[in-house]
Amino acid sequence: MANGTLLYAQSGGVTAVINATASGVIAHARSRKVNVLAARNGILGALREELVDTTKESAASIAALAHTPGGAFGSCRYKLKSLEADRAKYERLLEVFKAHDVRYFLYNGGNDSADTAWKVSQLAAEFDYPLTCIGVPKTIDNDLAVTDTCPGFGSAAKYTAVSVREAALDVAAMAETSTRVFVYEAMGRHAGWLAAAAGLAGATPEEAPQVILFPERAYDEAAFLARVRKVVEKVGWCVVVASEGIRDAQGRFVADAGGGKDAFGHTQLGGVASHLAGRVKDELGYKVHWTVPDYLQRSARHLASRTDWEQALAVGKAAVEYALKGMNAVMPAIVRTSPAPYRWKIEPVPLHKVANHEKTMPAGFIRKDGFGITAKAREYLQPLIRGEAPLPWGRDGLPRYVTLKNVAVKKKLPAWKG
Amino acid sequence: MANGTLLYAQSGGVTAVINATASGVIAHARSRKVNVLAARNGILGALREELVDTTKESAASIAALAHTPGGAFGSCRYKLKSLEADRAKYERLLEVFKAHDVRYFLYNGGNDSADTAWKVSQLAAEFDYPLTCIGVPKTIDNDLAVTDTCPGFGSAAKYTAVSVREAALDVAAMAETSTRVFVYEAMGRHAGWLAAAAGLAGATPEEAPQVILFPERAYDEAAFLARVRKVVEKVGWCVVVASEGIRDAQGRFVADAGGGKDAFGHTQLGGVASHLAGRVKDELGYKVHWTVPDYLQRSARHLASRTDWEQALAVGKAAVEYALKGMNAVMPAIVRTSPAPYRWKIEPVPLHKVANHEKTMPAGFIRKDGFGITAKAREYLQPLIRGEAPLPWGRDGLPRYVTLKNVAVKKKLPAWKG
Repeated sequence: MANGTLLYAQSGGVTAVINATASGVIAHARSRKVNVLAARNGILGALREELVDTTKESAASIAALAHTPGGAFGSCRYKLKSLEADRAKYERLLEVFKAHDVRYFLYNGGNDSADTAWKVSQLAAEFDYPLTCIGVPKTIDNDLAVTDTCPGFGSAAKYTAVSVREAALDVAAMAETSTRVFVYEAMGRHAGWLAAAAGLAGATPEEAPQVILFPERAYDEAAFLARVRKVVEKVGWCVVVASEGIRDAQGRFVADAGGGKDAFGHTQLGGVASHLAGRVKDELGYKVHWTVPDYLQRSARHLASRTDWEQALAVGKAAVEYALKGMNAVMPAIVRTSPAPYRWKIEPVPLHKVANHEKTMPAGFIRKDGFGITAKAREYLQPLIRGEAPLPWGRDGLPRYVTLKNVAVKKKLPAWKG
Repeated sequence: MANGTLLYAQSGGVTAVINATASGVIAHARSRKVNVLAARNGILGALREELVDTTKESAASIAALAHTPGGAFGSCRYKLKSLEADRAKYERLLEVFKAHDVRYFLYNGGNDSADTAWKVSQLAAEFDYPLTCIGVPKTIDNDLAVTDTCPGFGSAAKYTAVSVREAALDVAAMAETSTRVFVYEAMGRHAGWLAAAAGLAGATPEEAPQVILFPERAYDEAAFLARVRKVVEKVGWCVVVASEGIRDAQGRFVADAGGGKDAFGHTQLGGVASHLAGRVKDELGYKVHWTVPDYLQRSARHLASRTDWEQALAVGKAAVEYALKGMNAVMPAIVRTSPAPYRWKIEPVPLHKVANHEKTMPAGFIRKDGFGITAKAREYLQPLIRGEAPLPWGRDGLPRYVTLKNVAVKKKLPAWKG
């Protein structure tokens, strides 16, 4: 292990292709004779010294990881604060790194992870510990700065567009005597990227989804209901896609409008889709169905986009390259070198340009009436859902997803008293 | 048109493969030189004389129909009553059939449709009108009598098993710091066939889904919560699949437990998943996510089972054969000729054996503890989700679904005063 060890960790909500990035990291590191350890449950595993030895996995397992959704080593929602506030934790990380000869730290996540990786690199410099920290992008929210898109988003976007198109064919068939309005709730608390991706299912304002509700626009119930009525009267039915994060003019989340307690005093979990469906039913009298795909939209590896999958692999491979070159505190970003034909490449960007920034959807992506996407949005989104990522299926009719052995590395330090 | 015309109609909830049956019907009738008309919105189109001329569609469109979800001609929820109660409607049907030289009537649906086709055949005999009526099976509910399974079920079952497995990988990765319990709501108001299919996602009681709630068993909240807690304590997380039709010991639908009106007096649409999630959160304190796939589970042609798709095509083709042979008042049923290796064939069964019967899930399919499926259920279900049905994808990353021209046939009769 002349080169030292590489530590890889996953962070935040997982995606259909974050394991493709892990696979890219491990396979490429192997080809460069660098051993990879993985942290159990993200940064927590690094703090707890709960590390997994990926050298115990076969080449076939690492290859299969590239088509397995979820997070193979576990992820976590655990944000480190500033170097001052959480100094003990950052120092503990360095101790664990030293104990296992970790010279490369790859943190695969969103804004927070980029920030953490950046801070760890600063502390390592302060302590003169030779460590190269790389942030590796991942998020279905598509909200990372600088990079053209984020691995994970394209696949969730493809899931959304395909599902909305399929459901629309169902509703169209049923509308004469049954369901006239269908409401689809898309993830996206702060930005409407996934709701926008649903717009790829139809080419004109009369094709489904005929109504998209974005968190970037204040939800106006009267305008919404008027639009639904108009669509039903013209088309015969209407598909609504609503971002979970839509808010009214007072800034209140629509998802909270229902909810609360039911008649028995039990928690009533609301949601945007059920609320909108209820309003359509009450005010317009149409029969309505609604869906909340929730985790299905971010774990549907069977519907992953080829573009997204290739980018997920590529950022993993590039991260290893950057690490071995000692390019500290950078993130491999996706750069769109040509819109049509769509071409992209990977380039390093300084972590501080990514950390704690949030990319919102350009105003020019939402149609003037607020209910759909523009040609510009379509041009941006379309290539991201292109192509079908390879997936081996078993004789049992299920995808061949792999479960790693995840052999624990022997601890060398006293237990962490977090 | 020496042979007379064949009228095809779709009924009830559509499936991922009902159009494969339509494609099988039309393609096979063409090969036998029989023209096919299709009724707009099922039997309603026949009553209203709203017919579509399928001879205007290209061979490529009819072929593409085999991989397009939804109902290409529209479906309907419209049940004809007894011959006595609805005699005028049945007579109107015969008038329309006569006006368009319809000699073969293929009605593609569930129990009710089999019943309607059967009654139409009786009235035709009474009036000495030469008409051959065929019921063609279709339903994701898998509740038709006699036939081993129903076209549409296998694909919805595959969607369920794959989605549950994928979501489980997501939850497993998040459980340490976030979601510990995930609730998936499966369609099935009267029988737990789709919930049971979720059981194919895991091989042992500790693999997801660790809890399945069937409508065949009374929902016992205390037992449910105890089981979830036990699973979380052992596995770290738990995936629950609940049939939308589960009821408590008093026979009340659990889905109705929430719902009602919210604080603003607005309709609060409940559902099983959100209710169970709320109970888990309140009583066990676990972070919980839930999904209601709704129409997505029956329209996901991108995830159709090859077995199901082949059977959907085969019943369409067989129905035409039976019709042309004058085999009146029958339905092509799927017969399992061998469980392992799985083999099947199509055989005609009298419609009266199918009409108004409901196939429930055998008691031996549910595990003794009530929370999972047995080896017997697995043996029955497994072949039904096997194989991936062919699907051409476009360069835009979306499946190439076809929209038919649906050219209207000129009306010959006075308007129907339904």
